[in-house]
Amino acid sequence: MPHHAPKGLDRLAFGGDYNPEQWPEEVWAEDVALMREAGVTMVSVGIFSWAVLEPEPGRYDFGWLDRIVALLHEAGIRVDLGTPTASPPAWFYRAHPEALPVTREGMRYEFGSRGAICHSSPAYRTAARAVTGQLARRYGAHPAVAMWHVNNEYGVPVSACYCDTCAAAFREWLAGRYGGVEALNDAWGTAFWSQRYGDFAQINPPRATPTVVNPAQELDYQRFAGAQIRANFTAERDLLHELSPGVPVTTNFMTAPSQCESMDYWAFGSEVDLVTNDHYLITDGRRTHVNLALAADLTRGVAGGAPWLLLEHSTSGVSWQPRNPAKAPGEMARNSLGHVARGSEGAMFFQWRASRRGAEKFHSAMLPHGGTDTRVWREVRALGADLAALGEIRGTRTVADAAVVWDWESWWAQRLEWRPTEDHDARERLDSYYEALYDRHLTVDFVPPTADLTAYPLVVVPALYLASEAAGRNLRAYAEGGGTLVVSYFSGIVDEHDGVHPGAYPGVLRDVLGLTVEEFAPLLPGRHVTLTGPDEAELTGDVWTEFVVPHGAEAVWSYADGPAAGRPAITRHRVGAGTAWYVSTRLDTAALDTVLGLAAADASLPERADLPRDVEVVRRRGEDGREFVFAINHTAAEVKVPLDAPGRELLTGDGVDGRLAVPPGAVRVVRTVS
Amino acid sequence: MPHHAPKGLDRLAFGGDYNPEQWPEEVWAEDVALMREAGVTMVSVGIFSWAVLEPEPGRYDFGWLDRIVALLHEAGIRVDLGTPTASPPAWFYRAHPEALPVTREGMRYEFGSRGAICHSSPAYRTAARAVTGQLARRYGAHPAVAMWHVNNEYGVPVSACYCDTCAAAFREWLAGRYGGVEALNDAWGTAFWSQRYGDFAQINPPRATPTVVNPAQELDYQRFAGAQIRANFTAERDLLHELSPGVPVTTNFMTAPSQCESMDYWAFGSEVDLVTNDHYLITDGRRTHVNLALAADLTRGVAGGAPWLLLEHSTSGVSWQPRNPAKAPGEMARNSLGHVARGSEGAMFFQWRASRRGAEKFHSAMLPHGGTDTRVWREVRALGADLAALGEIRGTRTVADAAVVWDWESWWAQRLEWRPTEDHDARERLDSYYEALYDRHLTVDFVPPTADLTAYPLVVVPALYLASEAAGRNLRAYAEGGGTLVVSYFSGIVDEHDGVHPGAYPGVLRDVLGLTVEEFAPLLPGRHVTLTGPDEAELTGDVWTEFVVPHGAEAVWSYADGPAAGRPAITRHRVGAGTAWYVSTRLDTAALDTVLGLAAADASLPERADLPRDVEVVRRRGEDGREFVFAINHTAAEVKVPLDAPGRELLTGDGVDGRLAVPPGAVRVVRTVS
Amino acid sequence: MPHHAPKGLDRLAFGGDYNPEQWPEEVWAEDVALMREAGVTMVSVGIFSWAVLEPEPGRYDFGWLDRIVALLHEAGIRVDLGTPTASPPAWFYRAHPEALPVTREGMRYEFGSRGAICHSSPAYRTAARAVTGQLARRYGAHPAVAMWHVNNEYGVPVSACYCDTCAAAFREWLAGRYGGVEALNDAWGTAFWSQRYGDFAQINPPRATPTVVNPAQELDYQRFAGAQIRANFTAERDLLHELSPGVPVTTNFMTAPSQCESMDYWAFGSEVDLVTNDHYLITDGRRTHVNLALAADLTRGVAGGAPWLLLEHSTSGVSWQPRNPAKAPGEMARNSLGHVARGSEGAMFFQWRASRRGAEKFHSAMLPHGGTDTRVWREVRALGADLAALGEIRGTRTVADAAVVWDWESWWAQRLEWRPTEDHDARERLDSYYEALYDRHLTVDFVPPTADLTAYPLVVVPALYLASEAAGRNLRAYAEGGGTLVVSYFSGIVDEHDGVHPGAYPGVLRDVLGLTVEEFAPLLPGRHVTLTGPDEAELTGDVWTEFVVPHGAEAVWSYADGPAAGRPAITRHRVGAGTAWYVSTRLDTAALDTVLGLAAADASLPERADLPRDVEVVRRRGEDGREFVFAINHTAAEVKVPLDAPGRELLTGDGVDGRLAVPPGAVRVVRTVS
Repeated sequence: MPHHAPKGLDRLAFGGDYNPEQWPEEVWAEDVALMREAGVTMVSVGIFSWAVLEPEPGRYDFGWLDRIVALLHEAGIRVDLGTPTASPPAWFYRAHPEALPVTREGMRYEFGSRGAICHSSPAYRTAARAVTGQLARRYGAHPAVAMWHVNNEYGVPVSACYCDTCAAAFREWLAGRYGGVEALNDAWGTAFWSQRYGDFAQINPPRATPTVVNPAQELDYQRFAGAQIRANFTAERDLLHELSPGVPVTTNFMTAPSQCESMDYWAFGSEVDLVTNDHYLITDGRRTHVNLALAADLTRGVAGGAPWLLLEHSTSGVSWQPRNPAKAPGEMARNSLGHVARGSEGAMFFQWRASRRGAEKFHSAMLPHGGTDTRVWREVRALGADLAALGEIRGTRTVADAAVVWDWESWWAQRLEWRPTEDHDARERLDSYYEALYDRHLTVDFVPPTADLTAYPLVVVPALYLASEAAGRNLRAYAEGGGTLVVSYFSGIVDEHDGVHPGAYPGVLRDVLGLTVEEFAPLLPGRHVTLTGPDEAELTGDVWTEFVVPHGAEAVWSYADGPAAGRPAITRHRVGAGTAWYVSTRLDTAALDTVLGLAAADASLPERADLPRDVEVVRRRGEDGREFVFAINHTAAEVKVPLDAPGRELLTGDGVDGRLAVPPGAVRVVRTVS
Repeated sequence: MPHHAPKGLDRLAFGGDYNPEQWPEEVWAEDVALMREAGVTMVSVGIFSWAVLEPEPGRYDFGWLDRIVALLHEAGIRVDLGTPTASPPAWFYRAHPEALPVTREGMRYEFGSRGAICHSSPAYRTAARAVTGQLARRYGAHPAVAMWHVNNEYGVPVSACYCDTCAAAFREWLAGRYGGVEALNDAWGTAFWSQRYGDFAQINPPRATPTVVNPAQELDYQRFAGAQIRANFTAERDLLHELSPGVPVTTNFMTAPSQCESMDYWAFGSEVDLVTNDHYLITDGRRTHVNLALAADLTRGVAGGAPWLLLEHSTSGVSWQPRNPAKAPGEMARNSLGHVARGSEGAMFFQWRASRRGAEKFHSAMLPHGGTDTRVWREVRALGADLAALGEIRGTRTVADAAVVWDWESWWAQRLEWRPTEDHDARERLDSYYEALYDRHLTVDFVPPTADLTAYPLVVVPALYLASEAAGRNLRAYAEGGGTLVVSYFSGIVDEHDGVHPGAYPGVLRDVLGLTVEEFAPLLPGRHVTLTGPDEAELTGDVWTEFVVPHGAEAVWSYADGPAAGRPAITRHRVGAGTAWYVSTRLDTAALDTVLGLAAADASLPERADLPRDVEVVRRRGEDGREFVFAINHTAAEVKVPLDAPGRELLTGDGVDGRLAVPPGAVRVVRTVS
Repeated sequence: MPHHAPKGLDRLAFGGDYNPEQWPEEVWAEDVALMREAGVTMVSVGIFSWAVLEPEPGRYDFGWLDRIVALLHEAGIRVDLGTPTASPPAWFYRAHPEALPVTREGMRYEFGSRGAICHSSPAYRTAARAVTGQLARRYGAHPAVAMWHVNNEYGVPVSACYCDTCAAAFREWLAGRYGGVEALNDAWGTAFWSQRYGDFAQINPPRATPTVVNPAQELDYQRFAGAQIRANFTAERDLLHELSPGVPVTTNFMTAPSQCESMDYWAFGSEVDLVTNDHYLITDGRRTHVNLALAADLTRGVAGGAPWLLLEHSTSGVSWQPRNPAKAPGEMARNSLGHVARGSEGAMFFQWRASRRGAEKFHSAMLPHGGTDTRVWREVRALGADLAALGEIRGTRTVADAAVVWDWESWWAQRLEWRPTEDHDARERLDSYYEALYDRHLTVDFVPPTADLTAYPLVVVPALYLASEAAGRNLRAYAEGGGTLVVSYFSGIVDEHDGVHPGAYPGVLRDVLGLTVEEFAPLLPGRHVTLTGPDEAELTGDVWTEFVVPHGAEAVWSYADGPAAGRPAITRHRVGAGTAWYVSTRLDTAALDTVLGLAAADASLPERADLPRDVEVVRRRGEDGREFVFAINHTAAEVKVPLDAPGRELLTGDGVDGRLAVPPGAVRVVRTVS
């Protein structure tokens, strides 16, 4: 996938979703003037405008859009032009109620919210193609248009529909995937519970059943639902490519597992001209900046390491979480520049001006209800200036120390019913391993299980329950080639159809780890186990233990108590020129740090003990050797960050040598001369 | 609304729901004899009798009702005669399954419980009118009939139906409300998320949607559902007025927010000839007598300050709460006389004789399963005697010290989705402010936001998120005119369509409070903030904080920590001749007492420090100057209540001078001579 | 019900569910060889094979089954042959979607799991009869076949369907039960809430209603649903009896209340030729061996005291609980022999070989994914040897010390809505009373309320809310005849239609207990009451208290505080030649032990203070006087169990005299010579 920058945008992107149709036209001039004051460089327009663009079937009203696009263009503000296909109008549903999605339980949703789309609906496809074609023809060559923004956050709020149209499409998709029904019977294991199908025509979506549904059917339905969505995206994309050549096409992803569960972004990432992402802090009391860093790194992974663009985040609180705290002073800038450090070519927001009505009126905006005499507006203007000062980083790439293997299909499979324990949560393991790496000041690339790993000294696999034989071979080859591999429990267990790999657990990872697992032995809530290891260091685990039998691996920590008392708990296997670690219980972040410290030593990674906790240092590097060191101070004290080389701090303009002082809560970006 | 007393009832009402159709006729004579023994003066008959009154469509059986009404009349017991329209019979639903209500998710309820009514159903309206007409014609002039009791507890168990009949009625109602669809689009803010309607025909009820539904649509649907219910009530009422002139018509409300969430009693209260209410203690561990006092005061507010009647409460435990504790000895009498103190012209119960079968057989009754040799029966008889001794209070009015502004629409709006925090709960704020006033021994009138407030030295606004401009003007005029106003956070924010008032928060209350709120900053669970104030008095808040910017108001307490550290937390604004307080965080009852103490001092209200906690003193006053002091001792110790004037205690007949001794758990009522 | 042993099985049953259709035929030979190695004597085949036996309507494929049955027969392994009617194939549902069950809310389940059957469906009955007939004709006289296994775990995962077919069948069933609709109106108490029916045609199943449904209707629907299931069982059974004479027919029950809530096993038990049961440990942190003992005793009760057969349990963890711990070493053997001690004629498992695909691949098996070099396989082989050594116990009967009255209908009734408190849980009371008896080392028979109790010195009634007059008379006669009766609160309250028995609580138990209960006074969560009793022994209760009025009973403990302070809490009534105890609050197991100790003394039961906690001693006795003492040591220390007579330990072959040493975690079985 080649990376395409927004056309004609020669600065970092700064701006937000702009919905002029919510305001009288007399407000527009003020909007554009304030955008200029704030340094806005691009806005996203038209995302939810179908009902005003096409107020009746086939009757279009582009006048307002012509006028606002012209105003923006005059002001030098680039336009990320939305296709409005995320929210068909009321008239569409009145004519096509069958295009409303249906739940697993058979309930058809109603119009009145957003995103109520059956992605198998021919009527939807036709209507979406028509309005997108009209837009593309009218604005495809407009000089203001920098980018096409198709639809909005595909996959939320509803990703799969279970209606009869989808049932028919699913059968067709299955026939294409399996060829014959016996191949499907084998893959799905329909011999179990008498589920054998005599014909594709007998198959339905995994609707509500009296007890657990066939797990392979469920997995395939999630794949199918994603494929239907991607097909609707590519249909719009191809039309835009045809009618608006040279303008890149994107759709805003929500790559963070905390924001969207249903999209396989390894598959989706390759379909867009540039990867854009929406990210919102999850304010549940955990460290939001770690959560943000994970999301940004994962987005970069989806972009194959190339630059990407943060298309939405928030200036302060959102409105859709159970509690929506405000951001602290400076937090918005740290968030924005945190994304930029990890590969974003700018920082954009939902939304420009706070809505007075509708579902999101308590969501923060660049211009709050209180207007310009507010803290938020002042910080927005300051951020605009900061981003203007960083234009030269465009096109550089973030530098990683290690890789983390992540896979959406494996995550889905771990969330199926009737697992050894419902307390195991793949996303929690991902978060914890990531946090431990973050606290070791290691920058991480996310990669799929079959990626080329040879460039990474350390590869961490937090939860790869579903792993193909190819993935197993890839991880083995990596370790044998001299890499250091760390694998968490319940990995390598099943194939792509949720079938247990033949032989003892952990299936395709037995050889590289040098062990078998005889039985899973999950713990009841509140129960803990003690692990004894080198130098009498004790660790504590919970949720999960196992009966590990070494076949070449050495026990580094062993269970001192619990169901597996006396057996190995954490093992190291010398394999080829490398090393493979296995962690068979749930450790918290602090305990993981101990284990990852040993693995990092195996991988000869630096310690970075001179950097305090919550001081984030990330590098972007140009092909020309320029290096930009981002230092983000999330603490309340000034810190000194050691630099490898002298340089110039871009936000203050100061020269820096040796150690960079970063005030409390501040961000500094040094271009080093090497 | 003129207050009408039950016709021919010259004593306080005492009795209960009486369902003779559940018993063989040989039991009736015993019933009437025991009623006489207990001093029963009125019973409610026929509320759930449709299936026996009209066993087949159009075939009526009034024989049994004739006989029991005659028996009661002979015994001098007045009849509150029910129309049975809360529970249509099985045959009705067999013929009209479309009259069963449908949930938001499209599920149609089944017959077999009670109150399963689509209030838009033409078939229901026709059938209800028919049976009510028959009753009215037969009993409209019967000398036993004191009152008509239409339906039962409108609004529970189901208040809104989402069927296609309702959808059509909703469209009609909207057309009447808005005139044209563009006015609706403006009011609902349909420009957001592409929800614009081209025609009323495109609109449906707010059925289940993939994510949050349009909030104005939701609010209007609640209004519509209430209007449909009121229309069904007024149809019966008008028929009864026509066929039974001179007999007042009521329906039993459940005004307490803990008992019914769906009815706007400000709108409903003006439709009845006299306000009657059902109230049940919520036994969740909090002080039930405070909860009762609130309900009684609110009912009096719905009656515009006039006397009202408690039509149902319980002698001991109910059966529909998760846990249903029994009442302690004396508690029933304190409950009953507590209602009377706050305006009720008697105390009636559900129900006379405990049912052996059906859903409520474990609900207490005046005559328990165990018969007359029981504690409950003995207390019932004693209560009958007490009420007989208090007949002279009829027609007098309860005297209030302060007003609390409450509004059902504002409550509904606060419960919509996607608010700043789900931990804010308007009812909780109402309860807490009320409890703090109760503990200061202040009697409260409840008033709507646009009521004339000039008579009140103190007005408290616990949670008025939705406030019209008229409400804002009213509160400002009140304070400017010399009143003392106390407003809690998240008030004055939106208009009647849930649209944010233009400009900074708190919209229509900015001026009177002398401040703006830049941002809401809700707290995560378990987090607290410290407030520092006068004389180093510290308070603690949780759930909610804000960035308050004073524009005239002075900070009385400020945040010492938390997101708004250093900013004002509780402010006082001198406005015109009065004062407006603002409390920007959630204080518990004890902390509220501190703030309300200062406000009460501003309002020159008395301290009443001589009354112990949980001793309730309430006054009723006649137009002729007679005053009745109710003293209810909820404690386990005798207390002495100071009196302004000597008088006579009506339950014991004793003369009282200066200080009234009230035994533990007892009630005393003194007629003072002034 | 005569007990029939599996035909041709001359050893204890040992084996499991065997699903060869999940594996290629080349695996079968290995399976049979390993079965022989492990000492397997019987396997259950074909339970979920419908889709492979009848791949298209009317086309049968018996070849594979012929081959595997022949293989098993050659190896001397008996076959428990399943009728596959628990899981109709996909083609069946495509032709008969109306046979999919419908929920109370009207949602029709989809195919894709298991057990999705409307038991009123004529199409299902026809199809089930056809396939069972084919099987019976082909294998009815096959020498390998030891037993017919009809369907699977009737009652789970779905027991009741609410479709229109069921509605019609329910009306017919009601007409048969009540004769006329007025009898139904009386029984259901339809005078309450205007629910009177004019005709059976007006009645529907208790589908979702706006609030609580008629409780008698709900109870009758549960009875009806069970009757439909039993009718489907007996239809298959009668066909098998006809076509396969001499081969006993069973269906695997799940008698433990923790595993199936919907079946009335008192009614079902008499329909099978031998009682078989499935039991799985509930791993919620409580003592699993007590839970197992209860299940085994209850199964024996369902079998009328005769031997029965454990048809499924697990070698280690299951996969369908929230958390599925592995079994500890030795635990499987203790479980298996615990069942045998309490009457099972063997120990069988789900399943032989772990499935690679489908819903239960993480369920343990006799042959795990890891194969034969595993702890589980080694323990399986050892268990096979142990069972082989115990063959001579076949036909003997477990000896009980006391009886516990249990009734499924009463349990259902206690779970209806609108009870005095939702914290009362009949199953919890059953568990607690059972656990207290277990800890006193008393072996218990379970009996229905009208059973002949004369043989038991002690009868405990933990929760008999619904009790017929006959039950009341039976319990009274038992006590008057010299028995010792212990009754827990909320017993004897209602008749079979959930109607309160006339007069004061506890209805039909007033006389035998010598008291009335004026009111229930449940406690709020976290509240406790103190009971003072003999020798100043204090007990603590929670959840429930009452106002008990003695009429002959003496107060042994009284409430020292709480709502019933000063009233009797635990009473003893000398009645006739016996004694009746009443416990009016919820005591925990330890407090129950105190009360049951006094009752056991009244009943002259032995103390067994020489047996440590968690050492289980159970006896089976032959008609010929042989006695087998099972001693199961659940502790981590060796224990010495006193024996009444010398004997031979059957697992070790050692002679034993006086005291039997049982190593930690071990089981010993002594045949005593008396």
